[in-house]
Amino acid sequence: MNAPSPVSVHTPSASYSLTLRVRLSNKTGTLGKVTTAIGRAGGDIGAIDIVGVGQDYVLRDISVDAGSSDHGEAIVEAVRVLEGVEVVNVSDRTFLMHLGGKIEVVSKTPLKTRADLSMAYTPGVARVCEAIHRDPDKLFTLTIKKNTVAVVTDGTAVLGLGDIGPAAALPVMEGKAMLFKEFAGVDAFPICLDTQDPDEIVRVVKTIAPVFGGINLEDIASPRCFDIERRLQEELDIPVFHDDQHGTAVVVLAALLNALKLVGKRMEDIKVVVNGVGAAGVACTKIIMAAGVRNVVGCDQLGALYRGRAEHMNPAKLAYAEMTNPDGERGTVHEVIEGADVFLGLSVPGAITAADLRKMDARPIVFAMANPTPEIMPEEAEPHVAVMATGRSDYPNQINNVLCFPGIFRGALACRATRITEEMKLAAAHAIAGLIGEHELHREYIVPSVFDRRVAEAVAREVEEAAYHSGVARRAAM
Amino acid sequence: MNAPSPVSVHTPSASYSLTLRVRLSNKTGTLGKVTTAIGRAGGDIGAIDIVGVGQDYVLRDISVDAGSSDHGEAIVEAVRVLEGVEVVNVSDRTFLMHLGGKIEVVSKTPLKTRADLSMAYTPGVARVCEAIHRDPDKLFTLTIKKNTVAVVTDGTAVLGLGDIGPAAALPVMEGKAMLFKEFAGVDAFPICLDTQDPDEIVRVVKTIAPVFGGINLEDIASPRCFDIERRLQEELDIPVFHDDQHGTAVVVLAALLNALKLVGKRMEDIKVVVNGVGAAGVACTKIIMAAGVRNVVGCDQLGALYRGRAEHMNPAKLAYAEMTNPDGERGTVHEVIEGADVFLGLSVPGAITAADLRKMDARPIVFAMANPTPEIMPEEAEPHVAVMATGRSDYPNQINNVLCFPGIFRGALACRATRITEEMKLAAAHAIAGLIGEHELHREYIVPSVFDRRVAEAVAREVEEAAYHSGVARRAAM
Repeated sequence: MNAPSPVSVHTPSASYSLTLRVRLSNKTGTLGKVTTAIGRAGGDIGAIDIVGVGQDYVLRDISVDAGSSDHGEAIVEAVRVLEGVEVVNVSDRTFLMHLGGKIEVVSKTPLKTRADLSMAYTPGVARVCEAIHRDPDKLFTLTIKKNTVAVVTDGTAVLGLGDIGPAAALPVMEGKAMLFKEFAGVDAFPICLDTQDPDEIVRVVKTIAPVFGGINLEDIASPRCFDIERRLQEELDIPVFHDDQHGTAVVVLAALLNALKLVGKRMEDIKVVVNGVGAAGVACTKIIMAAGVRNVVGCDQLGALYRGRAEHMNPAKLAYAEMTNPDGERGTVHEVIEGADVFLGLSVPGAITAADLRKMDARPIVFAMANPTPEIMPEEAEPHVAVMATGRSDYPNQINNVLCFPGIFRGALACRATRITEEMKLAAAHAIAGLIGEHELHREYIVPSVFDRRVAEAVAREVEEAAYHSGVARRAAM
Repeated sequence: MNAPSPVSVHTPSASYSLTLRVRLSNKTGTLGKVTTAIGRAGGDIGAIDIVGVGQDYVLRDISVDAGSSDHGEAIVEAVRVLEGVEVVNVSDRTFLMHLGGKIEVVSKTPLKTRADLSMAYTPGVARVCEAIHRDPDKLFTLTIKKNTVAVVTDGTAVLGLGDIGPAAALPVMEGKAMLFKEFAGVDAFPICLDTQDPDEIVRVVKTIAPVFGGINLEDIASPRCFDIERRLQEELDIPVFHDDQHGTAVVVLAALLNALKLVGKRMEDIKVVVNGVGAAGVACTKIIMAAGVRNVVGCDQLGALYRGRAEHMNPAKLAYAEMTNPDGERGTVHEVIEGADVFLGLSVPGAITAADLRKMDARPIVFAMANPTPEIMPEEAEPHVAVMATGRSDYPNQINNVLCFPGIFRGALACRATRITEEMKLAAAHAIAGLIGEHELHREYIVPSVFDRRVAEAVAREVEEAAYHSGVARRAAM
């Protein structure tokens, strides 16, 4: 066997799940050779099925989780070289799941008879149109606007992949729509815009707005996203919410509230290093400061932002430097992390090392949220931190926007909110954190599971109440 | 009893279906009094249910079909005045069906486990995005683009209601999306545009196009619609199809093919009066002339269009006058209908009378397609015509676009057509007409029922074949 390759440090996960169809000679022990080879190559075997039997062979499907694409290829290669074994086909379960897209548009009522047709469509529908034309408020009761959100992207900042364009971003937007429905019963539809011009984006979203009860902006690059969100919210009377900023910020605050309980520290006393001051970094900084943190040091590629820094600045960063870094710290992230209580990574894979973690204050908290590969892998960080969280679904403490956005839109739609206020975001963070009782808190359980069905419900309830309190709910309170 | 009101000529239909909740005194005969009153007022009673029983009363729900809104109110009034009867509530089944909208966006695969999540969303989805980024053709296999159509309107020509705006048009677009799914398994989503500027419409539709495999333009006023469709088709590489024009034209041609068989006339020999030369009128004229008709006289509000007419013309009408009316006929529709074999109404309710029908040639064919109320009601036209058709679902011979658009898009999407050619439209018309065998043809059966499941399938098959033949199919032929 070779020495462990760099990929072997990645835990095998379903996101790299292969199904190998292999033709095995009937010779005793052939299957054993295959499973051993897969195990030695670091693959996790799921199911093994027989799909066909011939005179002198057996055809089997073997599901294997790998740690990365390269790792998957290495596993297949390890099987391919075995004697008496032919790899007939390798299918990738993730790609199979995406065939033909992941969402569909279906009728809520059957359309089986002539009577159904004359009520849902002509001539009956004309009376419904007339009713809305006479009283535009009826749009919220008689159409999908009541429950429908546009998931809007220009494809400029997709996951960790960057500017891959609106078409390649579509699988993410479809996934988002699935999550909206699955977790909060909200109907969402992907709008992938073939433009990167902010004026054009604002104009197009305004123009298509009549159908939607809310706009979820997604994966739009910073700093353009700030302006787009602000202008859209000014010009539309439905909530406009850039999830990469505010969804992330809400869940980070929820996680931080609980992590600080575990390590026995207070918001007021901690130093937080925020690596990556893009959309999410800025929003996280704002929300944790609103929650009491005083000492935040933000870093970009050049290192700490401080008042007076001249290189590589823009209006957003100037404003950021103005409100943070009270001690005027300078230096790279590897330098300013010294003595920090919390590291918040919203940047790129490999941004920090285990050596950096050892410079932090006692009981350090690390949220490494670069997507899909964190600033430091949990396996590597683990020995050096008190609490570790990432954005991934295949590790503990997943700081995932899905804890926030379905419930926050559910709550906003329920009361026909015109916007999502700061108060509504803070309410969402406290609702999420509050679901884990003090006695349940654990270093691997600072946020609820994304599959905890109480989350969206609790968030929606608190957000709706906050909307009435903020005065942005259009629906008369019940 | 009063003399029959004008509304009583309308056949009661499910599109005006009411549910009356009535509280009846226990006195024997009270229910009989109610049903008699409803019957005398012209209502059709559906179901009668008991929903509650008190000491001296019974609470019942009575479903009643009426002929119009006014008629419904008259029926309720007839019940309201009865002694021992209290009308507690009147609910309108059409409005109940529209509550909260008629469509929803759902996941095609369950999202129940962490493994599901890491394949459908992060981190697994990143590999799918990368695959599309590397090979843009994969957009058609790995996303909803493969099967998804935008139903686009600006709300300027909605049914017979006119310019009611994008919001009030939404129930129609939702209905259209239901039909796409129900009849052809195509996913469609409403895009209601808050602009009436053609340049803006073209720009917005182009910008949101990445998600869609086709664009169905709907209820956009003439003559603007011609330009919008042409420009969009020139600039996009997916089919752009203004259903009000071409969908109607395809089904009209299908109906005409079969109606002419019944009356024993040939395309070459007939005179057709087309009343209403908007989007649909122009498209119908073009397709029937492509199928062999030589003598078409088009009329607008002023009467026949002829070469040299000066009043109330525009470029579209000038072109129309140029290619039609070979005998240079002049006069109102009531005049030029004299001797016509076919009347094609795409105009307004009440545009012609029974007296007009009596001026037509022997065995006249009348397609009165104003929506929702035809140019002449079938009850009135019936005694004077050989074949009568309307656009309504509650009369025989419904010339309904639903016979065309689901199958035509199904066929176009199946082969990834870049556009819908003339050849594909003619193929669709022949596919529809061909489903009724010669021995089955009947004056009340010239087009298949919209619920005939063979229709979309036959249309899709012929359209796909025509697409390969026209050279617009992008998918390699099987």
